[in-house]
Amino acid sequence: MIENNFVLKGSIVYSEDKDTINTIQEGYVVCQDGKCLGAYSTLPDEYKSLKLYDYGKSLIMPGMTDLHVHAPQYTFRGIGMDKELLDWLNTYTFPEEAKYKDIEYAKKAYKYFTKDLQRTFSTRAVVFGTLHNQATIELMDQLEETGMITYVGKVNMDRNGGVDLEEEDAATSLENTRKWLEAIDGKYKNTRPILTPRFIPSCSDELMRGLTDIADEKDLRIQSHLSENLSEVAWVQELVPESTSYGNAYEIFGAMGNPDRPTIMAHCVYSNDEEMEILKKYGAFIAHCADSNMNLTSGIAPIRKYMDAGLNVGLGTDVAAGSSMNMVKTMLITLQASKMYYRLVNTDVKPLTFEQVFYLATIGGGKYFGQVGSFKYGYDFDAIVVDDSKMYSMRDMTVRERVERMCYNDADAIIMDKFVKGNRIYSIK
Amino acid sequence: MIENNFVLKGSIVYSEDKDTINTIQEGYVVCQDGKCLGAYSTLPDEYKSLKLYDYGKSLIMPGMTDLHVHAPQYTFRGIGMDKELLDWLNTYTFPEEAKYKDIEYAKKAYKYFTKDLQRTFSTRAVVFGTLHNQATIELMDQLEETGMITYVGKVNMDRNGGVDLEEEDAATSLENTRKWLEAIDGKYKNTRPILTPRFIPSCSDELMRGLTDIADEKDLRIQSHLSENLSEVAWVQELVPESTSYGNAYEIFGAMGNPDRPTIMAHCVYSNDEEMEILKKYGAFIAHCADSNMNLTSGIAPIRKYMDAGLNVGLGTDVAAGSSMNMVKTMLITLQASKMYYRLVNTDVKPLTFEQVFYLATIGGGKYFGQVGSFKYGYDFDAIVVDDSKMYSMRDMTVRERVERMCYNDADAIIMDKFVKGNRIYSIK
Repeated sequence: MIENNFVLKGSIVYSEDKDTINTIQEGYVVCQDGKCLGAYSTLPDEYKSLKLYDYGKSLIMPGMTDLHVHAPQYTFRGIGMDKELLDWLNTYTFPEEAKYKDIEYAKKAYKYFTKDLQRTFSTRAVVFGTLHNQATIELMDQLEETGMITYVGKVNMDRNGGVDLEEEDAATSLENTRKWLEAIDGKYKNTRPILTPRFIPSCSDELMRGLTDIADEKDLRIQSHLSENLSEVAWVQELVPESTSYGNAYEIFGAMGNPDRPTIMAHCVYSNDEEMEILKKYGAFIAHCADSNMNLTSGIAPIRKYMDAGLNVGLGTDVAAGSSMNMVKTMLITLQASKMYYRLVNTDVKPLTFEQVFYLATIGGGKYFGQVGSFKYGYDFDAIVVDDSKMYSMRDMTVRERVERMCYNDADAIIMDKFVKGNRIYSIK
Repeated sequence: MIENNFVLKGSIVYSEDKDTINTIQEGYVVCQDGKCLGAYSTLPDEYKSLKLYDYGKSLIMPGMTDLHVHAPQYTFRGIGMDKELLDWLNTYTFPEEAKYKDIEYAKKAYKYFTKDLQRTFSTRAVVFGTLHNQATIELMDQLEETGMITYVGKVNMDRNGGVDLEEEDAATSLENTRKWLEAIDGKYKNTRPILTPRFIPSCSDELMRGLTDIADEKDLRIQSHLSENLSEVAWVQELVPESTSYGNAYEIFGAMGNPDRPTIMAHCVYSNDEEMEILKKYGAFIAHCADSNMNLTSGIAPIRKYMDAGLNVGLGTDVAAGSSMNMVKTMLITLQASKMYYRLVNTDVKPLTFEQVFYLATIGGGKYFGQVGSFKYGYDFDAIVVDDSKMYSMRDMTVRERVERMCYNDADAIIMDKFVKGNRIYSIK
């Protein structure tokens, strides 16, 4: 067991801001009571009495945040990827999620999910379950055990899910939600509930309004999907004809949250100026899921534009439309997507830099949890230690180069240890 | 040592044609004298006396062909990816390649390359070296030892490489080329020379013409780069003002080969109708390098259009502009790229299907080597055995599903054994 106040030594890397990566070739990061007391090239005298863990040449970086992932989709990731969103949901996703009515099935499948999630670069995650209370509680129990800090949602759906994946009506869905919240009240330290209307096509107006009432009453956050696919956007316009945009439809139902309890909207591939204004006004977080958006032929979200406009953005792996929970692979695909948006759609929107994508994976999504995703003073001490020695080089590389290389060669980056709020929650040993 | 005539048992998968993947859940592939005698669900009586290797539930698939990879760039892969082609070449690539003048450096670096290449899904590769004879011979020596079948090119450059990476003039470059060919004449069984003018900006008209004379005289093939990047295309138009397209410039110099010794042109991101006609007329092969083309913000080649027009297409990893020699990761990125071309550029050009991308990785590039890349009767027996058991599922998956899943989750696909022309050249054991 590692002590709670300690120093890690290694090659330190973290974002100072969205355009600056700080690195220290041989440096120190200090943890006290779960908080980071800064990164140093020379260890200050006052910390010299703390226990020091020397990781040699390994990279030490902040934990990453996966802002959007579907736990029940994990075990069928990577198949059926020749379909687009609505077909893919009906053919693969909804039938699979319906199986989580069976708690034994859920127990087994969620063990695969949680075990693998714990081995990733992520220390925090925001997770979709299914509409089943019991399975969602099982998922939360398992996630609590990992030591990661997560938000988890029981999904709400009272229409368009097919006979096997729909709650009877809005009242039933709301009642189920209240029962779920009661059942887990006070149960967890690190696992928090989040209200989860799947997306407007799955939720009647009554359900949407009822959920936002619960959010207000219980001070809960909301997550959903927004403007992912052109057919979906057109469908929402039919379903909520009075809305001026898909984002406005959520706004009408009161689902956009507020800066103190921001809503997460996954995707935002097709958010226009009005939708951007709405997202900004309510302080919502965009969970950018480039892997998913390319796999389902959805398109590419203009993330650089959103960042420049001051919107909150993080990255999501969006398994199983995204095929991997590896945030570093997600960073690579995010870079490629933004380069293609620039080249093929609009040369006024510059590609994301590596600095910006590293920021999005760490601070960008971490901000949803507070001061998370950096080694700046006062941040939560979330850290991962990565052995990149398999990626030999013919010359000494800078830490900045090593981190970029890791992103492009994820298979050769080995996660050694993982800390959340100063607790070591995973070790390869 | 495995015998030369044998049967492999496992889950068999191979392309029948570009739109059809054949699978056998528990099947057999038969090898005799380096050739495949077909794939069977029940082993024919006449093969029952052959030694049988039972791989249980592992996937058995044809070896893949990497149609374009730069060996000297391997050790710096995955850095500097925020630049575009010409900047990237001048900043990273040319200074690195210049180091291969030092044979000790080359020996060491090429060991990393060949060792890692042997562990990939590829059984065949077409490789760029540097302009240095001695280093290129070292590379060929090392590749010969792997048992893979490769074409390797000493690079020609007599302009625009900077002081450290240019041959003195066309005559010197041609003389070096002849010396290189003499030095390796008759030396290798599996390693063949290929003439390699880097691209037109690196080669004077005189050098281009001299190389195609050598190609004709010695019955050699040519590889180069074509229409990768918009600035490059514009530059070639200045350098060869009489050309009607970049492809036509190569045609003018006689470098497009013929169907019996086809030229490989890497990229073809911006090939217009005229260029497509030229590629078709000479039976050239397009080495499609989607990873590279996204990393360097080059664009996306309309591969589905090229296939529909009957052009020869295979896949290249194009390390180090592509960051990995993993052909399965390349397949994933190829799919994503083609989906984005459809969504963002031209909805008349349908996305590549998984069937088509699997075909491109196996038969598409394999065709450059003859009957290579399938388990159809008479093909060279190139095979890889892949353990995908780490990718557990909640239900039995079809072989087709398992192969697609492998493509999206490459890190969990473990190559157990690799055969080239019936010889086992690699085993994880």
